[in-house]
Amino acid sequence: MVTADRAGGTRAVARCDALGVAPYSDMPDGLFRGYLTPAYAAAQEVIAGWMIEAGMTVRIDAAANLIGRYKGGTGFGVPPLLIASHIDSVRDAGRYDGPLGVMLGIEAVAALDAAGRRPDFPIEVIAFGDEEGSRFPASMLTSRAVAGTLDPAALAVADRDGVTLDEALAAYRQLVTSWEAEREDEPAFSGIADFSLAGRMSALAYLEAHIEQGPVLEAEGLALGIVTGIAAQLRYQVEIKGMAGHAGTTTMKLRRDALAAAAEAVLAVERVAQDDASDLVATVGRLSVAPGAPNVIPGRVDFTIDIRSGDQGVRDRAARAILAELDVIAARRGVSISAEQVQDLAASPCDPGLTDWLADAVAAEGLPPRRLVSGAGHDAMVMAALCPTAMLFIRCAGGISHNPAEHVDPADADAALKAMLGFIDRLGENV
Amino acid sequence: MVTADRAGGTRAVARCDALGVAPYSDMPDGLFRGYLTPAYAAAQEVIAGWMIEAGMTVRIDAAANLIGRYKGGTGFGVPPLLIASHIDSVRDAGRYDGPLGVMLGIEAVAALDAAGRRPDFPIEVIAFGDEEGSRFPASMLTSRAVAGTLDPAALAVADRDGVTLDEALAAYRQLVTSWEAEREDEPAFSGIADFSLAGRMSALAYLEAHIEQGPVLEAEGLALGIVTGIAAQLRYQVEIKGMAGHAGTTTMKLRRDALAAAAEAVLAVERVAQDDASDLVATVGRLSVAPGAPNVIPGRVDFTIDIRSGDQGVRDRAARAILAELDVIAARRGVSISAEQVQDLAASPCDPGLTDWLADAVAAEGLPPRRLVSGAGHDAMVMAALCPTAMLFIRCAGGISHNPAEHVDPADADAALKAMLGFIDRLGENV
Repeated sequence: MVTADRAGGTRAVARCDALGVAPYSDMPDGLFRGYLTPAYAAAQEVIAGWMIEAGMTVRIDAAANLIGRYKGGTGFGVPPLLIASHIDSVRDAGRYDGPLGVMLGIEAVAALDAAGRRPDFPIEVIAFGDEEGSRFPASMLTSRAVAGTLDPAALAVADRDGVTLDEALAAYRQLVTSWEAEREDEPAFSGIADFSLAGRMSALAYLEAHIEQGPVLEAEGLALGIVTGIAAQLRYQVEIKGMAGHAGTTTMKLRRDALAAAAEAVLAVERVAQDDASDLVATVGRLSVAPGAPNVIPGRVDFTIDIRSGDQGVRDRAARAILAELDVIAARRGVSISAEQVQDLAASPCDPGLTDWLADAVAAEGLPPRRLVSGAGHDAMVMAALCPTAMLFIRCAGGISHNPAEHVDPADADAALKAMLGFIDRLGENV
Repeated sequence: MVTADRAGGTRAVARCDALGVAPYSDMPDGLFRGYLTPAYAAAQEVIAGWMIEAGMTVRIDAAANLIGRYKGGTGFGVPPLLIASHIDSVRDAGRYDGPLGVMLGIEAVAALDAAGRRPDFPIEVIAFGDEEGSRFPASMLTSRAVAGTLDPAALAVADRDGVTLDEALAAYRQLVTSWEAEREDEPAFSGIADFSLAGRMSALAYLEAHIEQGPVLEAEGLALGIVTGIAAQLRYQVEIKGMAGHAGTTTMKLRRDALAAAAEAVLAVERVAQDDASDLVATVGRLSVAPGAPNVIPGRVDFTIDIRSGDQGVRDRAARAILAELDVIAARRGVSISAEQVQDLAASPCDPGLTDWLADAVAAEGLPPRRLVSGAGHDAMVMAALCPTAMLFIRCAGGISHNPAEHVDPADADAALKAMLGFIDRLGENV
């Protein structure tokens, strides 16, 4: 069994911090690292160096993902364990959402290498290029490329400057080719691999460590959580039409106030989710009122409903209950309410066997193996199409993410690294 | 007793329709008549002609109000009964909000003149120039000038093109002087009167007929209503601060959802007003949600509360009850709620004696003398500083105003005209 350098998780956090500023950010005051931007190239170069330092050979694939490979103890033909997360960010981002999982993957390999250990399978650490979708109007482009589920039509999408993904990738390939020319002394850095964007690699398993982006672990005083799956999600766009009227001249009993009806709907959404003891969450996040003047009774309100649960059945029952409540409100108040379903994402469960080993590894560190559903989407969801997946959550301060205030305790990252090494041990025992 | 020409109210409605298009509108498709604009000048010219036709002499006062005077049966020194409303409009307006009251005043005089009757007091019909405040950022400028309550500082306000009220009035005076020069054969048209903008005329009483701008009369199947006063009004700007969070990762019990809190507040506002059996109305008309994304729990909501009643005590008790509910919501949900009072308009009761005569006149026409409070402001509110006031409401279709769909049944206008003549009779018996 390999134990991590005590400082491994701490160093992973410090490296995320180092990547939080220029030249690794595309914005002057704060962090934005877009896919295939100058900051992205700068980050890849330095991360490639860290991978090589940890004992890996590196390459950049056709989707411009950076991949570090640590050879297995046995011969050719054994598919790798993938440890991955993403290095792109939202605008004005925190430093850990994504990069921390990549840095912990590198630390895990560094610990194995320092101990002179090679598992019976190779390990590939992947720094995915696009998960957030903050440059192009599509997300998880690069894990979809690896999983072989990327529609080639995606190459035509353009960023806000009109640059298509195809053009941006071609320019990036040229850049990487120039790196290769400069680095003839470093054959480990093999540049763009020669497989097509829609190519599908084969893999033994997929492990992703990521900050929770939620407050559950912090509220329970836990450093780590084991993700059982990504929640199923439904989204509705709701329109309520009442009757606008003068706020001073329309008596209460003659009103058909669209906002009062919407207020009941907002509380119904909340109540349905609260009354369910499961992981169900339901949210009205956007709401607009027309005409929107202080002295006019609202005639129309538009709002969104977002419903998620790890269990699709729970989610769908909740949606039916909410829609039924909307009908009751409409009938009682004499307003019209229409709800259009605009998104339906299936649940993406993690592999039960891998999840058990990850839970065992967490428990072996003396930590409660708290299992939870991820309400947010992650690359693991995409990679489930390729191989069995497992996912580890790391506590983040206040549950805050996508914000410069995002914070991870280095001690929690150390604990995560130990659990990941424990997982690798257990996987090795079972291959 | 003078009875109106059966067609008097019908003609008043038709004249409003005639004034609803170019050259009496400043917008091509629809009606907008701003104070002191070309459409305003065109309207004044044609209305002055109708006043003269009805037996009046006309003048334009220092605030550019058009005033028609019908001499009384007795000598000098008796102050006039004022019958007035406004001829300016909001943008994309209906045709009756304002002008109908002026046209009915002209018809009342025309009926007296046709019958050869002169009451013991003069009657002045005033077409006020600014009630809506749709050109300059201040409303009821011209009735305030007549009532002597206009702050001279108001002359410095500018319209959206930077033209000050002072400049607009000076230009208008020049225009009217040119009319005078053209009309030497018509000495009745006396042009800008020589009294200062802040001058105060003396008046016996003030009568205004106006569409209801609300649905109460229509709901009760009544053509007319007697206004007991203009409601007292309070307005608050409320800010709720909760905590934004990821809609997928924040469990229901860890949320501090500003929108769910606001929804309870909206329903509390409605409930407080509904639970009061009086004329109390309370409205949340504007509400905005931040950050306002479908997948983010709202962290902040801002909204307005508008509270009105003819009885200031009722209004203030309701405000206290609503603010107390906000405190309870804030405490229970762990959010902060602050409410700032941004407007406090006192109630403006009509004169009880005049109101009784108006009610008697309505009853004498075989109509139920329904009394109601006006939730909207009117020139009568300003004129109450000058003399006792009475106000008559006329049913409008669907309670709709400030909209091209505004509609008045000519038969209702006929009924209003008869009631106004009955009021003039009763005033004459009591002077």
